[in-house]
Amino acid sequence: MIDVINDLEFDGGEDLLVHALPMARQLAALKRRAEAAGIPVIYANDNFGRWRSDFPVLVDNCLTSDVRGRPIVELLVPDENDYFILKPKHSAFFQTNLELLLKNLGATRVILTGLAGDICVLFTANDAYIRDFRVIVPSDCIASESAENNRQVLILMARVLKAEVCLSTEIDFEM
Amino acid sequence: MIDVINDLEFDGGEDLLVHALPMARQLAALKRRAEAAGIPVIYANDNFGRWRSDFPVLVDNCLTSDVRGRPIVELLVPDENDYFILKPKHSAFFQTNLELLLKNLGATRVILTGLAGDICVLFTANDAYIRDFRVIVPSDCIASESAENNRQVLILMARVLKAEVCLSTEIDFEM
Amino acid sequence: MIDVINDLEFDGGEDLLVHALPMARQLAALKRRAEAAGIPVIYANDNFGRWRSDFPVLVDNCLTSDVRGRPIVELLVPDENDYFILKPKHSAFFQTNLELLLKNLGATRVILTGLAGDICVLFTANDAYIRDFRVIVPSDCIASESAENNRQVLILMARVLKAEVCLSTEIDFEM
Amino acid sequence: MIDVINDLEFDGGEDLLVHALPMARQLAALKRRAEAAGIPVIYANDNFGRWRSDFPVLVDNCLTSDVRGRPIVELLVPDENDYFILKPKHSAFFQTNLELLLKNLGATRVILTGLAGDICVLFTANDAYIRDFRVIVPSDCIASESAENNRQVLILMARVLKAEVCLSTEIDFEM
Repeated sequence: MIDVINDLEFDGGEDLLVHALPMARQLAALKRRAEAAGIPVIYANDNFGRWRSDFPVLVDNCLTSDVRGRPIVELLVPDENDYFILKPKHSAFFQTNLELLLKNLGATRVILTGLAGDICVLFTANDAYIRDFRVIVPSDCIASESAENNRQVLILMARVLKAEVCLSTEIDFEM
Repeated sequence: MIDVINDLEFDGGEDLLVHALPMARQLAALKRRAEAAGIPVIYANDNFGRWRSDFPVLVDNCLTSDVRGRPIVELLVPDENDYFILKPKHSAFFQTNLELLLKNLGATRVILTGLAGDICVLFTANDAYIRDFRVIVPSDCIASESAENNRQVLILMARVLKAEVCLSTEIDFEM
Repeated sequence: MIDVINDLEFDGGEDLLVHALPMARQLAALKRRAEAAGIPVIYANDNFGRWRSDFPVLVDNCLTSDVRGRPIVELLVPDENDYFILKPKHSAFFQTNLELLLKNLGATRVILTGLAGDICVLFTANDAYIRDFRVIVPSDCIASESAENNRQVLILMARVLKAEVCLSTEIDFEM
Repeated sequence: MIDVINDLEFDGGEDLLVHALPMARQLAALKRRAEAAGIPVIYANDNFGRWRSDFPVLVDNCLTSDVRGRPIVELLVPDENDYFILKPKHSAFFQTNLELLLKNLGATRVILTGLAGDICVLFTANDAYIRDFRVIVPSDCIASESAENNRQVLILMARVLKAEVCLSTEIDFEM
């Protein structure tokens, strides 16, 4: 779950919100199903240049102030069992311990979701693929500023990264 | 110059050749101008899974056998002063010394060219951008299997990576 | 400041405590002087395999329970302005954002302190040196399980990493 | 096999040669046994700042000129089946594809040999250990400028990296 803890207080944030809010509802449902199936949930979130912050503080900031991203964060509040990674740049793998965490969890596949589909999700998908993870992207669980850009990046990931693009409801955690 | 030493002997290689050959002519001219201006030229080339090979051998293989990529390699034969990097995966930064080489050269900008525009060039552009390099992509010096995919990846790099997309003739090495 | 937030509840922790407590007093004084001079202070701390924890929780755990490392943590409680990094392995550079943080801070030199001198400090010193940072190690601000091992690792770092080994009181932040 | 293709034309090279020559004889025997057992042999060699060179050229340079390291290189001439990696810095893992190559080979253990024991071998051993490789160091197949430093670094690697330190003749490739 990439950059979902996000105040969206930046240029284009309003456009992103339009697509991100319905996405967050789908993602909340997917997350509940993953947890029920015992699949680890990882928040990989930008530190937004606040190097001294920690993740719970980021969550609190979005929940207690009147920021644009608040309704999304309310839908996706982390649980005690969730993992989190503060990423300093676009890719969740760059200068973070995500690779090691996935190795420790024994993961060979990653389901990538969140914001923005054509930026941080794409960067992270590239880095997952290059590290030999199988990439799955539920098309209704990523959002970009424009629906057209979102559509194109899904096609790109399917073609170049051999990503499995599907609806979140089609993901079967039991298999 | 990404993956230009390439036999193109793979599925889709024929489609790629159609676009890669005119690209190689532009690139050869750009390379001559870069060398004249004292700008270092780096070949970042796939090792194609041949871990024991070295770069001169790859070049020779493409020049002495009747492979699809031969006319391209003939246009772009490396000079003694060129640098080369054998990359094991799509991005020229992944598990190579490119970052260190660029640091040693004092580079802050990289001009990315080569094949395939929507795969290895895109991966490398992402990794350059995340490492704070300014990315320049001459649109006539990258090629993809389809012209439409090439066009879209240029738009994506301009938008997401703030890449400067231009014609190779517009690049002014004297500035 | 490496692994100073540490319960020391492991084999050899008792031996380490003997050397770590006087070290912590010196380090607390050095930290105060660094802060007064505006030098950023970074805690690079093991996550001790608790991937879901954050740093403030680690600090609290050490302060509120009767663990071996508590007197050290009490001397070295982080301030609001300090940076922290949770490292998953020995080196503070491995799968963390330390390199990027130091780049953002404009650092070219690092003063390495903490525990254990011959393990995590050594690993981190290696990785700092290989990344072209100048390494400074105040001999009274690192501690190992045995004084002899600590002495030898200081000699090794001076010889191999060209580390500047000195007393903490000799470090002049004003220069 | 770390930095064995080496002209030894640097300060201290003469001291290193004294220990490196008998080491090379042991290593040549170990290499033959490894090859007979089908164990891949990897040369991880410094590029000595010559970014444009390739490995065969480095070998030739040492064989055809009257350099200090020549007798060592003659004992350890690479075979066609050997792998090689040009490393830009001390550790064979830093900005190289060694990790990926070992992954491709399915390796979980590495036998580290070569020069200098207390510098490049140590750096590489650290990086192997942190990446969860089991480290084996035949004590008669590494050499440092001083025998005492060599002895101490073996003790350090055994203690800190849990390296298996043994004689090369004790390594059983059949197990």
